[in-house]
Amino acid sequence: MSTSELPDIEVETETELDEDDHLRPEFIRAVLDAVADGNDEEARSLVEPLHPADLADLFELTPGEQRAALARAVASLLDADVFAEMNDYVREDLIDALEPHEIADLAAELDTDDAVAIIEDMDEDEQRAVLRALDPDDRAAIEEALSYPEESAGRLMQRELIAVPEHWTVGDVITYLRGHEELTTDFWEIFVVDPSHRPVGTCALSWILRTPHWVPVADVMAREQTLIPVDMDQEEVALRFQKYALISAAVTDGGGRLVGMITVDDVVHIIQQEAGEDVLRLSGAGEGDINEPIRLTVRTRLTWLVVNLGTAMVAASVVGLFQGTISRFALLAVLMPIVSGMGGNAGTQTLAVVVRALATNQLTSSNTTRMIVRELRIAAANGLSLGLLIGVGTFVVFGNRDLSLVIALAMVINNLVAGLAGVVVPVTLDRFRVDPAVSSAVFVTTLTDTMGFFAFLGLASLAGLGA
Amino acid sequence: MSTSELPDIEVETETELDEDDHLRPEFIRAVLDAVADGNDEEARSLVEPLHPADLADLFELTPGEQRAALARAVASLLDADVFAEMNDYVREDLIDALEPHEIADLAAELDTDDAVAIIEDMDEDEQRAVLRALDPDDRAAIEEALSYPEESAGRLMQRELIAVPEHWTVGDVITYLRGHEELTTDFWEIFVVDPSHRPVGTCALSWILRTPHWVPVADVMAREQTLIPVDMDQEEVALRFQKYALISAAVTDGGGRLVGMITVDDVVHIIQQEAGEDVLRLSGAGEGDINEPIRLTVRTRLTWLVVNLGTAMVAASVVGLFQGTISRFALLAVLMPIVSGMGGNAGTQTLAVVVRALATNQLTSSNTTRMIVRELRIAAANGLSLGLLIGVGTFVVFGNRDLSLVIALAMVINNLVAGLAGVVVPVTLDRFRVDPAVSSAVFVTTLTDTMGFFAFLGLASLAGLGA
Repeated sequence: MSTSELPDIEVETETELDEDDHLRPEFIRAVLDAVADGNDEEARSLVEPLHPADLADLFELTPGEQRAALARAVASLLDADVFAEMNDYVREDLIDALEPHEIADLAAELDTDDAVAIIEDMDEDEQRAVLRALDPDDRAAIEEALSYPEESAGRLMQRELIAVPEHWTVGDVITYLRGHEELTTDFWEIFVVDPSHRPVGTCALSWILRTPHWVPVADVMAREQTLIPVDMDQEEVALRFQKYALISAAVTDGGGRLVGMITVDDVVHIIQQEAGEDVLRLSGAGEGDINEPIRLTVRTRLTWLVVNLGTAMVAASVVGLFQGTISRFALLAVLMPIVSGMGGNAGTQTLAVVVRALATNQLTSSNTTRMIVRELRIAAANGLSLGLLIGVGTFVVFGNRDLSLVIALAMVINNLVAGLAGVVVPVTLDRFRVDPAVSSAVFVTTLTDTMGFFAFLGLASLAGLGA
Repeated sequence: MSTSELPDIEVETETELDEDDHLRPEFIRAVLDAVADGNDEEARSLVEPLHPADLADLFELTPGEQRAALARAVASLLDADVFAEMNDYVREDLIDALEPHEIADLAAELDTDDAVAIIEDMDEDEQRAVLRALDPDDRAAIEEALSYPEESAGRLMQRELIAVPEHWTVGDVITYLRGHEELTTDFWEIFVVDPSHRPVGTCALSWILRTPHWVPVADVMAREQTLIPVDMDQEEVALRFQKYALISAAVTDGGGRLVGMITVDDVVHIIQQEAGEDVLRLSGAGEGDINEPIRLTVRTRLTWLVVNLGTAMVAASVVGLFQGTISRFALLAVLMPIVSGMGGNAGTQTLAVVVRALATNQLTSSNTTRMIVRELRIAAANGLSLGLLIGVGTFVVFGNRDLSLVIALAMVINNLVAGLAGVVVPVTLDRFRVDPAVSSAVFVTTLTDTMGFFAFLGLASLAGLGA
């Protein structure tokens, strides 16, 4: 790269990225054509200026069957950073093609958290082979990280951090940092620890740079710290980082000793992922990873669809109760999906709001009752408006007053059912520690479907329609 | 607070927060009871140990009509940080209760980005009154920020940053930082600029701390920087921070000059919000803010429900075409919602995956065709499985071979429609720069409803069922 002569780097990436930071399709085609033609040198020179994150994207955007050839062509550019940025499934594919000692070389280059991310997905035999190829220090660090539960702070943290004793001055800290080449450079705060290695305070680097040499760090550090227990779930970790606007945080073991550090850049993708997961879970689309093998995707989605098939049959059996009425007055069959469908739409709206409010800690036991009242008021307003619309519309088109009143009333009832179920179902599941995003929709739509059919067809029978 | 004698701060917050970092309902009740009893001192002493983020939460969890009294009781603890952490609607409520000069005092304490967040929501008269009460420097900074479009980098950035010339040494930088009390302490990187104030490199503070005094900053800085144009949309800003794992980034104006800095803590809540918005938008629940006035919520949701009512009528009119068939064979009305509903479920799954993949830049023009093929294969697998299930089930229950074949085939067709529409609709909208999360669902469910009814009832007619 010749960036040192090119102060404005936007120039050189302009050719590979479009205005949305996507890799341009023509660029990808040029690289893959070069690989297909056996012109590895051309491929390497095209790919060389890419940021590791963009190189990882290139692999994700390359069709599965061409990835191995691409990897062989640009092998010399595939460093650990690229693997750390890569989608899990794409990485697994590539890792499968590498020898254990090659993986060990990659892992040794990385901070513990990134090395663990690569190794944790491998099967046990491969893991053991890679760990054997690592030097003892790296191996011990990674083995310990793997001993913590998946998706916990212990997996997420890096062990490389700066910890200094309380009695040191700012000058001592700077001398220590300058004198020890082997220390990490990937840190934004340093931790001050007591003699048993328990964190007592945190110092932002800007405070150290702004303070005279002779001041003790204990006078500069913030004593209010947010400590992360090593077994905390990564979603909770992400919420803490967000709530307290943290850049990094100390991770402590059961005895309160400092064992690692989590930095915000490791948490950002979890925040994004956890927040984005709700839409996938509510629809039963699993992880929604477009690089997942199709077989796994089908299994996840089909499971959910079969559950929904069951509930659809329950709703259908309600319709079955009114077959006689329908055969005498088929217009009811025409209008009934409107009532059930609108209830489903309204219920989904409430569900989406409640699931987000639960996920972001905005809805707690302190304001649940207020939330139910709020949603019922909204449901009443929406139900009355929609009931009026559909009632008048039905009267205008079919000129049947009883039918108009029945559909209007059924619409109000089903909106109230939707509003109530949309809060109560996810809140109850959450109280029982079941993820409300995963399982709420099936309960709520079953309720709105069956109640929609039952209210509409039942009222129609009562009104003597189709009698 | 007596934190200096209490090294382990977990102890003192244990009483207010539960294990999920929620404020305990008993704690909230104790505070509100004290306020109601006119015992402001008690309320203040309870609230004093809270982190600003938790104090903001307390206001959000307090019923609307009690917030003003709470604010008056704990006024002395309400600093600008608390307002910066607060939900927009809750903040507006409180701000309405304050005089312009009080707001100006708050705004003057804050970095530009947080001050702008408070002021941008006020109406013009109030804005002018607050700006008049600010000192000229703060006023100029905030007025300039307000001149940038809403939700742009210009609104998000802070103008307080450290920029140094290229020819300085590390020692010069440290001397400068120590010698200027007025500089911000809220920075993690410094920017190196050329004589026309264009950024040429970025230096992490850890590198400065690890480097000898006499080394020029130009030798330590990274020349590859991610620059943020001042008019970039905040969602794009958030994606860049995430993709390149940035802690802070320089913001440049049209002439490439450094005008501000965005730090990751300002972006984290945008990442969370943008990622979480998809589920709300797909359901038409608007912002999904539980503190939004009910009137606004009803307006947003009702608009969307009325659009859905229109499409439900289109689907109903398809059923209307087959009224004769239904009146002769009412069982068709019982089974038809199963076909349309399952298509809707499958379409929603595909939609959720595609909307997330678009939002996270994983689905681009380079892999759209592959995505369509992938979803069609999944739809075929799911459709055949569900068709088989429902076909056999129908035969077992009703013993009608033709009906079983019709419903099985309709199920396969509708799953394929769902899979195709679930990709093509959002991708097309995205190509036309329409937010796919907002408008896709209405198109997709209209298609799965109408095609579900049409395929099932049409095939039934062709098969001579109900003839």
